Amino acid sequence: MYFYKEDLINIIEVDKPDPAAAKVLQEILGGRFGEMRTMMQYFFQGSNFRGNALQYRDLLRGVFLEEISHVELVQHTINQLLNGAGDSGVGNAGADGAPLDEAVLGVNSNPHHFIIGAQSSVPEDAAENPWNGSWVYCHGNLISDLLDNLVLESTGVLQKSRIYEMSTNKAFRETLAFLIVRDNAHQNAFAKALETLGVDWGKLFPVPNYDINKYPECKKYVDMGFHNAQFNFRLDQTRMGEIFQGQSPSRNAGELKVTDPPKGFPVPVLPEMPNEHSPGISDMNR
Amino acid sequence: MYFYKEDLINIIEVDKPDPAAAKVLQEILGGRFGEMRTMMQYFFQGSNFRGNALQYRDLLRGVFLEEISHVELVQHTINQLLNGAGDSGVGNAGADGAPLDEAVLGVNSNPHHFIIGAQSSVPEDAAENPWNGSWVYCHGNLISDLLDNLVLESTGVLQKSRIYEMSTNKAFRETLAFLIVRDNAHQNAFAKALETLGVDWGKLFPVPNYDINKYPECKKYVDMGFHNAQFNFRLDQTRMGEIFQGQSPSRNAGELKVTDPPKGFPVPVLPEMPNEHSPGISDMNR
Amino acid sequence: MYFYKEDLINIIEVDKPDPAAAKVLQEILGGRFGEMRTMMQYFFQGSNFRGNALQYRDLLRGVFLEEISHVELVQHTINQLLNGAGDSGVGNAGADGAPLDEAVLGVNSNPHHFIIGAQSSVPEDAAENPWNGSWVYCHGNLISDLLDNLVLESTGVLQKSRIYEMSTNKAFRETLAFLIVRDNAHQNAFAKALETLGVDWGKLFPVPNYDINKYPECKKYVDMGFHNAQFNFRLDQTRMGEIFQGQSPSRNAGELKVTDPPKGFPVPVLPEMPNEHSPGISDMNR
Amino acid sequence: MYFYKEDLINIIEVDKPDPAAAKVLQEILGGRFGEMRTMMQYFFQGSNFRGNALQYRDLLRGVFLEEISHVELVQHTINQLLNGAGDSGVGNAGADGAPLDEAVLGVNSNPHHFIIGAQSSVPEDAAENPWNGSWVYCHGNLISDLLDNLVLESTGVLQKSRIYEMSTNKAFRETLAFLIVRDNAHQNAFAKALETLGVDWGKLFPVPNYDINKYPECKKYVDMGFHNAQFNFRLDQTRMGEIFQGQSPSRNAGELKVTDPPKGFPVPVLPEMPNEHSPGISDMNR
Amino acid sequence: MYFYKEDLINIIEVDKPDPAAAKVLQEILGGRFGEMRTMMQYFFQGSNFRGNALQYRDLLRGVFLEEISHVELVQHTINQLLNGAGDSGVGNAGADGAPLDEAVLGVNSNPHHFIIGAQSSVPEDAAENPWNGSWVYCHGNLISDLLDNLVLESTGVLQKSRIYEMSTNKAFRETLAFLIVRDNAHQNAFAKALETLGVDWGKLFPVPNYDINKYPECKKYVDMGFHNAQFNFRLDQTRMGEIFQGQSPSRNAGELKVTDPPKGFPVPVLPEMPNEHSPGISDMNR
Amino acid sequence: MYFYKEDLINIIEVDKPDPAAAKVLQEILGGRFGEMRTMMQYFFQGSNFRGNALQYRDLLRGVFLEEISHVELVQHTINQLLNGAGDSGVGNAGADGAPLDEAVLGVNSNPHHFIIGAQSSVPEDAAENPWNGSWVYCHGNLISDLLDNLVLESTGVLQKSRIYEMSTNKAFRETLAFLIVRDNAHQNAFAKALETLGVDWGKLFPVPNYDINKYPECKKYVDMGFHNAQFNFRLDQTRMGEIFQGQSPSRNAGELKVTDPPKGFPVPVLPEMPNEHSPGISDMNR
Repeated sequence: MYFYKEDLINIIEVDKPDPAAAKVLQEILGGRFGEMRTMMQYFFQGSNFRGNALQYRDLLRGVFLEEISHVELVQHTINQLLNGAGDSGVGNAGADGAPLDEAVLGVNSNPHHFIIGAQSSVPEDAAENPWNGSWVYCHGNLISDLLDNLVLESTGVLQKSRIYEMSTNKAFRETLAFLIVRDNAHQNAFAKALETLGVDWGKLFPVPNYDINKYPECKKYVDMGFHNAQFNFRLDQTRMGEIFQGQSPSRNAGELKVTDPPKGFPVPVLPEMPNEHSPGISDMNR
Repeated sequence: MYFYKEDLINIIEVDKPDPAAAKVLQEILGGRFGEMRTMMQYFFQGSNFRGNALQYRDLLRGVFLEEISHVELVQHTINQLLNGAGDSGVGNAGADGAPLDEAVLGVNSNPHHFIIGAQSSVPEDAAENPWNGSWVYCHGNLISDLLDNLVLESTGVLQKSRIYEMSTNKAFRETLAFLIVRDNAHQNAFAKALETLGVDWGKLFPVPNYDINKYPECKKYVDMGFHNAQFNFRLDQTRMGEIFQGQSPSRNAGELKVTDPPKGFPVPVLPEMPNEHSPGISDMNR
Repeated sequence: MYFYKEDLINIIEVDKPDPAAAKVLQEILGGRFGEMRTMMQYFFQGSNFRGNALQYRDLLRGVFLEEISHVELVQHTINQLLNGAGDSGVGNAGADGAPLDEAVLGVNSNPHHFIIGAQSSVPEDAAENPWNGSWVYCHGNLISDLLDNLVLESTGVLQKSRIYEMSTNKAFRETLAFLIVRDNAHQNAFAKALETLGVDWGKLFPVPNYDINKYPECKKYVDMGFHNAQFNFRLDQTRMGEIFQGQSPSRNAGELKVTDPPKGFPVPVLPEMPNEHSPGISDMNR
Repeated sequence: MYFYKEDLINIIEVDKPDPAAAKVLQEILGGRFGEMRTMMQYFFQGSNFRGNALQYRDLLRGVFLEEISHVELVQHTINQLLNGAGDSGVGNAGADGAPLDEAVLGVNSNPHHFIIGAQSSVPEDAAENPWNGSWVYCHGNLISDLLDNLVLESTGVLQKSRIYEMSTNKAFRETLAFLIVRDNAHQNAFAKALETLGVDWGKLFPVPNYDINKYPECKKYVDMGFHNAQFNFRLDQTRMGEIFQGQSPSRNAGELKVTDPPKGFPVPVLPEMPNEHSPGISDMNR
Repeated sequence: MYFYKEDLINIIEVDKPDPAAAKVLQEILGGRFGEMRTMMQYFFQGSNFRGNALQYRDLLRGVFLEEISHVELVQHTINQLLNGAGDSGVGNAGADGAPLDEAVLGVNSNPHHFIIGAQSSVPEDAAENPWNGSWVYCHGNLISDLLDNLVLESTGVLQKSRIYEMSTNKAFRETLAFLIVRDNAHQNAFAKALETLGVDWGKLFPVPNYDINKYPECKKYVDMGFHNAQFNFRLDQTRMGEIFQGQSPSRNAGELKVTDPPKGFPVPVLPEMPNEHSPGISDMNR
Repeated sequence: MYFYKEDLINIIEVDKPDPAAAKVLQEILGGRFGEMRTMMQYFFQGSNFRGNALQYRDLLRGVFLEEISHVELVQHTINQLLNGAGDSGVGNAGADGAPLDEAVLGVNSNPHHFIIGAQSSVPEDAAENPWNGSWVYCHGNLISDLLDNLVLESTGVLQKSRIYEMSTNKAFRETLAFLIVRDNAHQNAFAKALETLGVDWGKLFPVPNYDINKYPECKKYVDMGFHNAQFNFRLDQTRMGEIFQGQSPSRNAGELKVTDPPKGFPVPVLPEMPNEHSPGISDMNR
């Protein structure tokens, strides 16, 4: 069973609205290599695990638990990027004082952000394709699953480092940087699991081959050792430390360690919007 | 952040393999009104909530937390129904001693259960369509969300009570019965939330209009009060009890109460299968 | 604007339940060459028509109007085939006296017929894929549209004549036979329209090359001239008769004529089902 | 059977081309809560209806009939918004004198509007996802269907009122305003139907909670009583007036009445376009 | 079996980057009427052919062989259009010196071009919908297949001539022009095949009705006779010349001839990109 | 450019019709890990390759070339399994002497095999979902691509070895056995490519861990060395031998060698079927 404490796994930096950034960030939420896919893939792999080598199941489930928090972090980041967006300033006065012409003028925005909900995240990718269950791979073979998870985490870094270049917005870059570092940790987890099965990775990792220090927001997380840590969200025992230990399989080196999760950050409370058309509900109920 | 204790929310009864039952049960996992949809819908509604009426956000998130456990329960039930299936007994000897001819002979089985993984659950519906993100509704308007959630929970009962009639397998019926009762509780939760906004439901609920006592497996859960309980999975405070309290909005009557979750049941460890082709992994790692 | 008289365009013959026949008939309702596709394709082609050659627009719209009735006819035929199905007789007693084990035992049934609704039609094809808007073609070029519509109508006959061979059920075959004859009429309509643009079809039509007299249910409709008639559902004037006139472009010969629609047949009222769980509603409201 | 008189249900105001507005308006045509979905949902609910409480079937079918006209109205509005669009004026001379560079320069246009057809409507949503049959809900339970239809109509208003804010184009706003008022009427229809089953809605409706008088184009339709009228498109008798009568269930009050449809407005004839490459067809055939 | 010589079927002209042009050109690669569809449609029609009239099978396969080269040509054209794109010049300095802000600023670009790969082609259409197998038609009836292929080739020209108007980029227009002429040749092939079955096309073709001489890039290919040539990629004998011979069925006239393919053009080698994060691989391996 | 010699890459064994086997074999053709996916994935990876390390591009393209032949082999195997199927023998006489009741009676057949074409292959998976372009991965990073291709080939073996157990039909098993051995060879190719980048695989491969000698049909291909051979389909030079050489990375050992392709096998000519409704075409044209 799953328990919750109302904390985000990382901070939501506040910056100006940036609907174009919100649009591309959807790839990280609902894309074929986004957080919804990793979350559901590890969920199915954990539940469908067979046999007694439960240290592997504990590892899969351990990463799954963190991915739920990643989905939540990206949802809130997108909401932050959309908060206050909508008015392009060209004087297209809305009937209710809340013009949404920015949705159609001069930026590559996601129309669903402005139509489907009250300027908030959707289960879609950057090109507005809905998330699709056929993207979840659970092969019924441990090695194939681990190799595939490696691809997932390396592609996660690749896509995030590309998206990072698309805006300097702080809410956007902070979330991306945190997730890049965590994808490195999870890449280490799956690479290490394959090491326990006999592979010597040589100098292959990290994939992609990039200098994480170029990303100033990443550096502090690396300094905190987050690239070599497996956060433990279990309220009971876990055997994942039997795998996630010893030398990192990456050129970035260091010692792998199971640790407590970050301390937690407040879940933002965003103001009601005119386009919700729900004013008064809070009044009625206080 | 999300924490885990390795317990299932209900028991997995053990019975004979029944791949045809496993096929139809996929609707409850990956169908347009299945547990993956409720889980993701309440997740997005909770994260995208705006304004200060946080008792509603807490309610949405509270139901979301339970839905994660429901997804897990259905995954394990499907795996139990598939465990040991595959050999129709017509003497179609497999090269590896593990014939899978039952996948193609004389039953309405899901071929993906036997091809994609090692006889385990997949993120698809009963007709093998992949789960689709466009099914998740988060309208950016609290009343629309609550009305839609009512539809979701009433349709959940409708579909489960129909599927229940398709097999007498114990693993199958026990899980369905538990979920039927919990869907009633969640229907009560959303109906009550709309009561706080002024609606008087009269004698409308429960929808559908059926006698839950006809389902012998349901009765014990009703006797335990599960149809009027909201399980609390929060490690910190929640305001959902401000809504989920007082008289049930259903003809079944009773007092609504926020309670502790069930005590938890063991997660099954299923044996390795020849078609995993992974023998030896557990040996290598013990 | 669209007006309605509660009549079906053809009779629904009553025969035994046949859920396997209902499953394959879905291709004719929701398949890529089914009635929903023809209906929506001609709807878009009619509305998106440009220019003054309005006799072509009137023809496209005229066929569209009939296709709405075809969709309705197939919906009711599927419902008839499902009515009373569900119990395989193997003694799998349902909790509510309405076992649905036929959905999982020994026949190629569509699980959605028994799960999603109360044994009724769905907007899916025979393989349970949802109908998809990308199948609708409206090219913005009249000749391409007409050629494509020819393909649609010839494929309509092809698929219906194949499906016809799959069951001898009377409800099934009567509807298929009527639609085969009407597809021939619509094939003639589009072939004739291309004749007005200069094509001489030689002996190409009808496509496919088959003997319609082999289908006993078809014969009476041919005798009534339905293969050479364009039914007129307009309450005002139409110019489609400028095209649909003169010698048939088909080897089956005859004179093309715009006529009144058939006299109309009663819309069946099917009984309530236990799995609707709605008993009492009619009582409350009489 | 379905009959037609060549009239639109509302006027198409003529204004400048606005391809960005055409793009977002697609959500109202082919989106998951658009007119194609309401049309097909009520069509299936009507045909799949079981039992003798035919006043409900007549109501479902009555709304369905109007939705066909709504689909047609939105198709023509999109065509009007696209008519004459294409040339950004930056001097990107086309080979055929019809540059389409506006499709790629500086606006959020839908590329399919300029590629697939001759600048006309497509069965897609605002993000260019094809319409999907899995969006149609027909639960086989009358109450669930009515609740779901309420969600559909309230979300219809929500999305239309958001899209309204995206452009001041007159063709765009007039159509949206008319449809907002009609969605209110249909919301009243389904809310009233649930009232007949015992619900007292209190002050819940209209959902969303907004002031329709803020939309100047809406006011005249409200003054004409369109928010409390159910248009009757039947050529024979209908029992829907047994439900749609008496006090409105909405705070906007008034008496519900079944009335004749609007008088009807001309279907526009748009000029041929160079990119149709069909010039001469009308000449050949006059 | 399939053999390869590293030559493109036409030249890739080099011009400035143009990501908006790359976006719309995706329709020609992965759209419902793009080269992937024609390639796969003729592949299935060829392999599924039944009976002894093998001259038709050879024709279908002959066109299929050329379509593989067309897919490759469009992939490389898109890559050329993306090469060097990404930096809008607004000073949004990327962490790795490779800003991708052009993906989100001021142009209608495809976000997947910048996120999923290192600025290269994807199997999607212009609206970023993934290519879908349900678009491939293989009717199991030769005449229907030939008619449908005619629609495919005429729509190919229609869409390409519209897309041509969207940018003056040379890489873009040269590829489109070559493909327009080849679609004319393939239209002639299928029209001629239907002529052998008795049709007289009159003055119907080419569809669309346009003046190919308006496209300066097309003219040289017409002068080389490419509109009346069927390229032969067989290493053994083919009977397609029994069909593709004699007078063209088009108003453009001329003699149809089976010929050798074009001489071939170099496959571009594009430079590595920072966002590949793969520098050094070539060093390691030389 | 691509050239063709009319030879299949392996023999099509002739055995009785087996539509249930044809249904599951579709996973290998149009499934998310089937031959259409490998073909298109390596096609995009080859065309989108950047940089000068062309030995890797040549390897990707080399495997792509073989995959085209694999698609063709599976198409013909499915056609062989369907040839003559359709009549269950229960006396359900068809109007045209070609009953198709086997499509609906007592077997898990694919209805599209009997409806869409004349009993032939379709671009779908075993559960009849259409092939989807979002399954093609081309990451724009060589290592990620190679790792992903490893997953593809290992999953290819996994799924084929599972499907093999579902029928003893000779046409079915011979094709599966050949492809299993070739997937091993391609697994070796991608594993070896990663070896050139520094990985030491230890005893990881082959994945899955199975005894290929259990499959009698595989043994002859192993004896011919097909598991260690890379077939060369280039008419010009290729550098793939710089990678595909030396010791196999697999426990099965042996020397990797680039070789000529197999000698080639005849493409079957299947008889015309009544449900094609095309009789006479061959007569008209001889």
